[in-house]
Amino acid sequence: MSLWYEEEWSGGTRFSVKIKEHLHSEQTPFQRLDVYESWDYGRFFSLDGYIMITDKDEFVYHDMIVHPAMAVKPDIKKVLVIGGGDGGTVRELLRYTTIEKIDMVEIDERVVRVCQEYFPVTACGLTDSRVNLMFADGLVFVRGAQEASYDLIIVDSTDPIGPGEGLFTEDFYRNCFRVLSADGILVNQNESPYYDHNRRELERAYKKIKAVFPIALAYQAHIPTYASGHWLFGFASKQRHPVEDVDMENWKKLGLETKYYNSSLHYGAFALPTFVKEYLK
Amino acid sequence: MSLWYEEEWSGGTRFSVKIKEHLHSEQTPFQRLDVYESWDYGRFFSLDGYIMITDKDEFVYHDMIVHPAMAVKPDIKKVLVIGGGDGGTVRELLRYTTIEKIDMVEIDERVVRVCQEYFPVTACGLTDSRVNLMFADGLVFVRGAQEASYDLIIVDSTDPIGPGEGLFTEDFYRNCFRVLSADGILVNQNESPYYDHNRRELERAYKKIKAVFPIALAYQAHIPTYASGHWLFGFASKQRHPVEDVDMENWKKLGLETKYYNSSLHYGAFALPTFVKEYLK
Repeated sequence: MSLWYEEEWSGGTRFSVKIKEHLHSEQTPFQRLDVYESWDYGRFFSLDGYIMITDKDEFVYHDMIVHPAMAVKPDIKKVLVIGGGDGGTVRELLRYTTIEKIDMVEIDERVVRVCQEYFPVTACGLTDSRVNLMFADGLVFVRGAQEASYDLIIVDSTDPIGPGEGLFTEDFYRNCFRVLSADGILVNQNESPYYDHNRRELERAYKKIKAVFPIALAYQAHIPTYASGHWLFGFASKQRHPVEDVDMENWKKLGLETKYYNSSLHYGAFALPTFVKEYLK
Repeated sequence: MSLWYEEEWSGGTRFSVKIKEHLHSEQTPFQRLDVYESWDYGRFFSLDGYIMITDKDEFVYHDMIVHPAMAVKPDIKKVLVIGGGDGGTVRELLRYTTIEKIDMVEIDERVVRVCQEYFPVTACGLTDSRVNLMFADGLVFVRGAQEASYDLIIVDSTDPIGPGEGLFTEDFYRNCFRVLSADGILVNQNESPYYDHNRRELERAYKKIKAVFPIALAYQAHIPTYASGHWLFGFASKQRHPVEDVDMENWKKLGLETKYYNSSLHYGAFALPTFVKEYLK
């Protein structure tokens, strides 16, 4: 007997992972949440049948959603994380001693509680004194948040289908802009440019973000457990260009050890393939 | 009823593609060769159960195995291609009018004939007058080849298991070095750094190539139909450094339209994640 977790990457493509044990399964008020122990990826969890993080490669995603923005704007003090229930984004942010406060707004408390139980290495930072954890709808939260109250907003959400949907609307991006300080930055997880249905979502989100922020770019990473392995992040900024205005020497001086991100890769991540640049035109 | 092609990416991971039609299947003297029509990737073929090229993303692989070296050394005149039976590498090389001669040494004539029938867009260049197509063992061929007779060698082979095995030996690399001109370049398809069994092959090949060439680096691309989607190429050179000694302005002047490769991506491809750099140390 063998047990396989199977994920639909598109109508005609499936990605399957051999499972040692199905550790947990529940229907939260927002989504279906499953935790597995696998042979190749260690422990992982999925929401509505899509892998969110695995022990093996969560470092790629969390490196890339945090460090590029921190390198571009080293004086970030106040951060808003929307989503990010597994805690990996907060864990990476906490490595910067210059950050004074992290507000984290996760819609689904069950994701946090289950990750605290099953992914202690990822969730470890959530109880830090600099972290203010709230269980609320991110869209509603930014509507009510004060003007210019954050230097960085990270949208670490699920895809534009399901509970993450509102985080890909122009209303949401406009409120992020308002809530960000004068040279604030918004980073969000985007989609893959590879499969048509992902790409269409990506183009739609990118168009909206471009309508709001003067600087809006995408950057990429290799995340083999996400559809196609070619994953994009959005970088939107009021003033600073992530390639032209970055001082990588300064970031290097911090001496942070990172398993994926590094100073050369910062530039490389923004060097998109021609076909991706065409989509985002 | 639905038909699925299933590939083992590792013992605990499978990648499955929904098939419209199994167009061709044969056991050649060297390997099992299958051609399929799929929903997501158009037509593709596999050797011994591993996808070689698909209509959807062959451009990534062929852009990346050819253009970086051509940008680094624009005066390349004589090229040796080992493997490359589908013809995509030759097709990209032929776009450079400065190339005078391409010797192509493919061990398996059946791969060429089947690709000429099923992948005319990829195989189109194989009948060009500048191409000298030979069916022979690449390892034996380079042993017998004249000193300094090529400016560029491209090893477009299968993985280090099966008929491609000899193309990952130090004997082979030493002969490539001998056969290359004074500032010649060797490019080979490597492996993924992601799964342990791939990574071990990668480390082994890289160590051997480093023992022979003064400059030996790896660069990466997103190829979603290869295991993990994170694929590496080896760049070995007698003199020219692919990042420090490249004149991208010169390459841009050629005006080649490429769907993946571009002048910024050239640098980005060599900017490897930290964990990959550690493996290659």
